[in-house]
Amino acid sequence: MKQKLPEPMLQALAEAEAAAARGEVPVGAVIVSPAGEIIASAGNRTLQHKDPTAHAELLAIRQAAQGVGSERLMNCDIYVTLEPCAMCAAAISFARIRRVYFAASDEKMGAVENGLRFFNHPTCHHVPEVYSGIGETAAQSLLINFFRLRR
Amino acid sequence: MKQKLPEPMLQALAEAEAAAARGEVPVGAVIVSPAGEIIASAGNRTLQHKDPTAHAELLAIRQAAQGVGSERLMNCDIYVTLEPCAMCAAAISFARIRRVYFAASDEKMGAVENGLRFFNHPTCHHVPEVYSGIGETAAQSLLINFFRLRR
Repeated sequence: MKQKLPEPMLQALAEAEAAAARGEVPVGAVIVSPAGEIIASAGNRTLQHKDPTAHAELLAIRQAAQGVGSERLMNCDIYVTLEPCAMCAAAISFARIRRVYFAASDEKMGAVENGLRFFNHPTCHHVPEVYSGIGETAAQSLLINFFRLRR
Repeated sequence: MKQKLPEPMLQALAEAEAAAARGEVPVGAVIVSPAGEIIASAGNRTLQHKDPTAHAELLAIRQAAQGVGSERLMNCDIYVTLEPCAMCAAAISFARIRRVYFAASDEKMGAVENGLRFFNHPTCHHVPEVYSGIGETAAQSLLINFFRLRR
């Protein structure tokens, strides 16, 4: 099934897989320029970086902003294997990202379609388009296998 | 009046002032160890770093986590000149910070006593104690002067 996924989501899944191999919760994120080029790609590194903010999305946003040379990623899209948390959803909004594609839902920490639903709140000043479920099965498998090994 | 403020808040205000001098929205944050020592101190650098996530709180959290050598800042406290936004509130919770002291309220972007009230939400798994209003006048003056010059 993986073959049918868009290239950036495949790469995000590969980042998630690499994160798991490092012992990190398997989440990956990829940012695509308005021209369709992948300009940032990162996996979760909270343990390795000893940084509670080193979620895949934040690392990818920082990488992309460095590349673009601006703190705003106008018309860029993000592909992420797990529903963003409140921290990452707010960062996505601050970065003015156009579209969010996420794979698996996160009932516990997600803040897009679950929990705080950050983008639906009146204090959210830039609201991206959201597409969910793309690559869900693959992303969920990575998470389930990761947590199964640890519990 | 400044003389009566706790030392970490005075330093956070100095960070905010330095941010304004760099052309950044004047917000400063300081993190204090359980022993009462200042272990991180940062001002907003979103423009300078070309990084939408470079809010004072996030920079201070990353700095403190590096120093402590852990992604968790157990029993540490944060002093910040402005009510944290959703991104920073979530990061504060992830970092397991014990107490949040903030100066000025932020009706537009704040997510502690305004807006999303992140720490009150059931999906917030670590809830710090919150103290607000300490240094409010000084923090507000910095913000008002900054925006007055730019509008």
